[in-house]
Amino acid sequence: MDSLIVWKFLIRPATTLFVGSHLLDPLLEFCNGRRVVLIADEKIQDPLFAKKIGAEFLTIPSGEKTKRLETVERLVDQLCQMGCERDTLLIAMGGGVTTDLVGFVASIYMRGVPLILIPTTLLAMVDAAIGGKTGIDTAWGKNLLGTVYPPQAIFADLDRLQTLPEGEWFNGMAEILKMGLICDSQIWERGPGRDPELMVKAIQGKIAIVDQDPLEQGLRRVLNFGHTVGHALERVSEYMMPHGEAVAFGCVVEAYLSMKLGYLAEQEFAQIEAVYGRFPLRLPKNYDRGQFLSAMAQDKKKARGEVRCVILEKIGRALPFEGTYCRVVKESEWESALDWMEQWKSFR
Amino acid sequence: MDSLIVWKFLIRPATTLFVGSHLLDPLLEFCNGRRVVLIADEKIQDPLFAKKIGAEFLTIPSGEKTKRLETVERLVDQLCQMGCERDTLLIAMGGGVTTDLVGFVASIYMRGVPLILIPTTLLAMVDAAIGGKTGIDTAWGKNLLGTVYPPQAIFADLDRLQTLPEGEWFNGMAEILKMGLICDSQIWERGPGRDPELMVKAIQGKIAIVDQDPLEQGLRRVLNFGHTVGHALERVSEYMMPHGEAVAFGCVVEAYLSMKLGYLAEQEFAQIEAVYGRFPLRLPKNYDRGQFLSAMAQDKKKARGEVRCVILEKIGRALPFEGTYCRVVKESEWESALDWMEQWKSFR
Repeated sequence: MDSLIVWKFLIRPATTLFVGSHLLDPLLEFCNGRRVVLIADEKIQDPLFAKKIGAEFLTIPSGEKTKRLETVERLVDQLCQMGCERDTLLIAMGGGVTTDLVGFVASIYMRGVPLILIPTTLLAMVDAAIGGKTGIDTAWGKNLLGTVYPPQAIFADLDRLQTLPEGEWFNGMAEILKMGLICDSQIWERGPGRDPELMVKAIQGKIAIVDQDPLEQGLRRVLNFGHTVGHALERVSEYMMPHGEAVAFGCVVEAYLSMKLGYLAEQEFAQIEAVYGRFPLRLPKNYDRGQFLSAMAQDKKKARGEVRCVILEKIGRALPFEGTYCRVVKESEWESALDWMEQWKSFR
Repeated sequence: MDSLIVWKFLIRPATTLFVGSHLLDPLLEFCNGRRVVLIADEKIQDPLFAKKIGAEFLTIPSGEKTKRLETVERLVDQLCQMGCERDTLLIAMGGGVTTDLVGFVASIYMRGVPLILIPTTLLAMVDAAIGGKTGIDTAWGKNLLGTVYPPQAIFADLDRLQTLPEGEWFNGMAEILKMGLICDSQIWERGPGRDPELMVKAIQGKIAIVDQDPLEQGLRRVLNFGHTVGHALERVSEYMMPHGEAVAFGCVVEAYLSMKLGYLAEQEFAQIEAVYGRFPLRLPKNYDRGQFLSAMAQDKKKARGEVRCVILEKIGRALPFEGTYCRVVKESEWESALDWMEQWKSFR
C-alpha cells in the first residue's frame, strides 16, 4: 500500500430553539431577504400565516400515511417546478409527521437546504422536532429511511399548550414522563400537568443527550426507553394506537422488566405504575403475543438479530451497560413482563 | 419570548482513504466481524470478490439512468427483505454512478449505515468518491437529490490505472487537470499522464478543500470550475457527452471567460488552451446556444436566478471574491465566451 490518508469531516450546524410566546418577530428575522416555502399539514387552519412571513405555501395530507417516499417525490417535484434553489428556506409546520417528512425533504433537496421547524403538537415540540432526526416509513416499518439533519431553528409556541386537546396533550406527556424516568427525576416529581416548565425541562434533557451522542452510538439510545415495547404495540395495532399511548405503555412495561431483571427497586416500580395507572392505557384490540414478539424482533434498534432494551436503574437514571445503554433481553426474559402487561389493565 | 436555546450539533465522522496496491488486507479488517453487503455495478466482473470479503452481493444496472429514486426504493426494499440492520456495512463498487447512488442509500437507510467506497474508474477515484457527496437524479436534472455523508473508508486501487481504457482515463484526467488549474500548479506542470502521483495530488487537493468547507458555503465552490459550462453541455447533449469531456470543455471555456473578464493573463490562457487543444473535444451534435443558455440557468449552483461561475486568477488559483469563490456572469458577458467555444474546435 502506497498512501494512506485519514481525515475528519467536520459538520457543525447550529440550531436555535425558541420556546415561548410572541415568536413571530424572531421568525421574521430568519425569513428576512430569503425565498421561503412553508409546507404545512393540511389541518393547520392559518391561511394568513404564510402571507405574514412572506412565504409560498404548500400543504401535505395529515396522518402517518403521508410519511412515504411518494410524498417526498411529489414535494421535490413541486420544489423543482417552483425553481427552488439551494438557499430556499423550507419551513415545516405541523406535528411529527410534518416535521419528520419535510425535514427529510430539506435534507436531500439539492443535498440540503435551510430548514426551520414549527412543531404544533406537544409531542413534536418535545420529541420529533428536537434532535435532528428526520424520517419516512416504508412498507417494512416506521422511520426505516431518514437522515440526521439539524434545522436552523425550531419555534415552539407555548400558547398552544393551553388549548391542546386531551389526546394530544397525553401524547406529548408520555415522552416528557419518559425523560423524567431516564434522566431527570425533577420532571418525574413535578408529575404530569399542563406546565410549560415541564416541557422546557424535557427539551433541555433531550438536547443534552443528543449533544453528547448525535449519531446514537451510545448514550442517545436511552431516549428509546419505552419504545422497544411501544413500537411493537404500534405495529401490532397497525399504527392505530397513538404514539404517546404506546410509549406510555412501553415505559411501564419496560420499568416492570427492569425490576424483574433485578435492576430497579420494587418500591420505585410501584411509584411508576401508580402514575401510569391513571392514564387511559389499553392494549390494541387485535393484540396477540406471537405477533407482538415478532414485531419486537423487527425493531430498528436491534443489532445482530437480538432484541435490546433500555433498562432503568432508578427513577431518573437509565443503566449505561458499558456505554451501550441497552441490554439484550432474551425471549424467555420477556415472558413475565408480557404476562404482566397482558393482565395489568384488565383488572381496572 | 421565554426561553432561547442555541446548540451546536457536532457530527465528526472520519474517513480513511487507501490509495495503492494490495488493498485486500485493510479492507478485510474493516469487514471483520460485521455483516457486509457489496453493491456493485453489474459490469464489474469479479464474482469471487464478494466471497473473498465474506459479503452478500447485490448488483445495479450500469449507466446514469440507474441514479434514480426507483433504484433507491428497490435497493432499500432488498436490504429490508434481507433483514439488514443499522450496523450492516454497505460497500459500493463501481464508478461514480454506483458510489453516488449506494452512498445515498447508505445515508438514508435506517438514518445511515456504515459505508465503504471502492471506486473503479479514475473519475470516481479522484472526484465522485472523495468529499462525502452522494446524489441521485430526477426528471429535473442531475444530482438534484443527495446528501453529504462521508464513508468510513475509500479504497482506490492504483493497479487499475495502467489498464484503464483511453476514454475512462481522459474522463478522470479532466478533473485532475481542473484541480491543477484551481489550486495546484504542480499538477498542471506535470501535465496529463498515467501517473499515480498525479492522482494522489489531485485527491489530496480535493480533501484539503473539502475539509475547510464540507458544506460548500464558500471555498468548496472552486471545485465547480469548468462545471457551469460542463453541466450545461451534458444537459444539452442529453447526457450522451461523458462528464470528463464536458468538464474539460468547460475548463477551457471558463478560462477564456476569466481572461476576457480581465482576471487571467492572456499568456496563461494560451498555455491552458494548448493543453486542452490536444484532447478530442467536440460540441454535442445537437448543440444550440439558446438551449445551452437556459440549461446554464437551471444549474444547481445558481442562487437567486443568477448564473455564477468560478473564475481563474492564474494557473493554480481561483479568485476568492470575498469568500464566495464565484462571480455572477451576466448573459451579455457569456456571449464572447460562447462565440469562442462555438468556433474553437471547428478549425481543427
